[in-house]
Amino acid sequence: MRKLYLIGIGAGNPEYITVQAIKALNVVDVFFFMDKGEAKQDLVTLRKEICERYVENRSYRVVEVDDPVRDPTISDYTTRVELWHRQRALVYEEMVAKELEEDQCGAFLVWGDPSLYDSTLRIIEHITARGRLCFEFEVIPGITSIQALAARHKITLNGIGESIVITTGRQLSAGLSGAAARTIVMLDGQCSFNNVLDEELDIFWGAYLGMGEEILLSGKLSEIASRIEEVRHERRQRNGWIMDTYLLSKPSEAG
Amino acid sequence: MRKLYLIGIGAGNPEYITVQAIKALNVVDVFFFMDKGEAKQDLVTLRKEICERYVENRSYRVVEVDDPVRDPTISDYTTRVELWHRQRALVYEEMVAKELEEDQCGAFLVWGDPSLYDSTLRIIEHITARGRLCFEFEVIPGITSIQALAARHKITLNGIGESIVITTGRQLSAGLSGAAARTIVMLDGQCSFNNVLDEELDIFWGAYLGMGEEILLSGKLSEIASRIEEVRHERRQRNGWIMDTYLLSKPSEAG
Repeated sequence: MRKLYLIGIGAGNPEYITVQAIKALNVVDVFFFMDKGEAKQDLVTLRKEICERYVENRSYRVVEVDDPVRDPTISDYTTRVELWHRQRALVYEEMVAKELEEDQCGAFLVWGDPSLYDSTLRIIEHITARGRLCFEFEVIPGITSIQALAARHKITLNGIGESIVITTGRQLSAGLSGAAARTIVMLDGQCSFNNVLDEELDIFWGAYLGMGEEILLSGKLSEIASRIEEVRHERRQRNGWIMDTYLLSKPSEAG
Repeated sequence: MRKLYLIGIGAGNPEYITVQAIKALNVVDVFFFMDKGEAKQDLVTLRKEICERYVENRSYRVVEVDDPVRDPTISDYTTRVELWHRQRALVYEEMVAKELEEDQCGAFLVWGDPSLYDSTLRIIEHITARGRLCFEFEVIPGITSIQALAARHKITLNGIGESIVITTGRQLSAGLSGAAARTIVMLDGQCSFNNVLDEELDIFWGAYLGMGEEILLSGKLSEIASRIEEVRHERRQRNGWIMDTYLLSKPSEAG
């Protein structure tokens, strides 16, 4: 039977990869690269470097496919994304059926961890639900940018015995949850921290975490928000893309 | 100068360790093992196995120290834990000063990730704040039990574009935050899911994640809560300890 691996390759630093992931890389016949967006070419290159570095004495193929684009005429975010996942499921299903023989292993290399703000697992579920392609699959966890952020700033994510909220820029703009003293924000292309009015908050920000380009900034949100926005804009212009994440923390809880 | 590493060794499965962690293990002169509680001996054994498996052609020492115990007469949880951290900082400081020479590397091997519900980083900060011991330190992220839980159940942690709350059994008992459709619970020795009244919730539960003993259970919370409690009790009796974590999810968001 065909087998598919969803392999978390960690965030940025190729040494964030786990022994479990390396073992899986070494049984794969076909790697499917499905990147999209402005970072596409750099992310494809980084994935290829991971394969070259860690796969030993084994030949493999790389299949690159362009993802369908989201339909901008659908106004509801969840509906738009769900429909996009279904379209992608069709593309992925066809690709796997065509490129992977019955007894072969295929893999999707997922930036960070497949369980966190990544859609590959949902797409696999859509394919399973359709029931036309028979395969086993396995998920391999990877270090997320959140963990890289904490390690590089040398901070804990939680206050003692406290909760943490992980959210998106979109959700943050819609109103910061008051329940947790610590909020981690991902997928924020809009500098949504500018909409947070709490004068007390500290921010721990990082971009290109684990990479040579890594930038870390931290301090009182009200004092460094504009500096972060400036750096973010400048680096995005220079590199053509940026990936960043940050922790907002009430100061008594910092560190 | 002395150097200390806080190395996240992942949750359970020795193959969750990263290449970065293995490189760090291989420059360490002294490993400090500070386990406590009912799982102590098994966790010490697992750490020793990781050192033996991954350290190559290098001699190292292992120093085991008993942690001070928390003062049960202090009723406030945060105060009790903070005081305990200060006591531990004194013990750790003395131990590092005594066991590690000026030009040597020491390491604490942290279960999961040093940034998440682990106190070693806070203890290092207390030592730094005291200013009596001069050292560099570096934090190396590791796969958490949350990521192991998601990978083994083959689920995503977040709904599409949604927030996630990570919390403790103690906080859950004090009232489930209604803000997020998904709540991850750690450090729950009391089966606090029994206090959650939402009939709609699904639970994805795992114990001894990544280990040979691993148990996974999932289903409607109202239907399997008592089964989980029973299994948890029975396994804890048999092994002398248990570590578990779970995700509570509104069903429309499951998968």
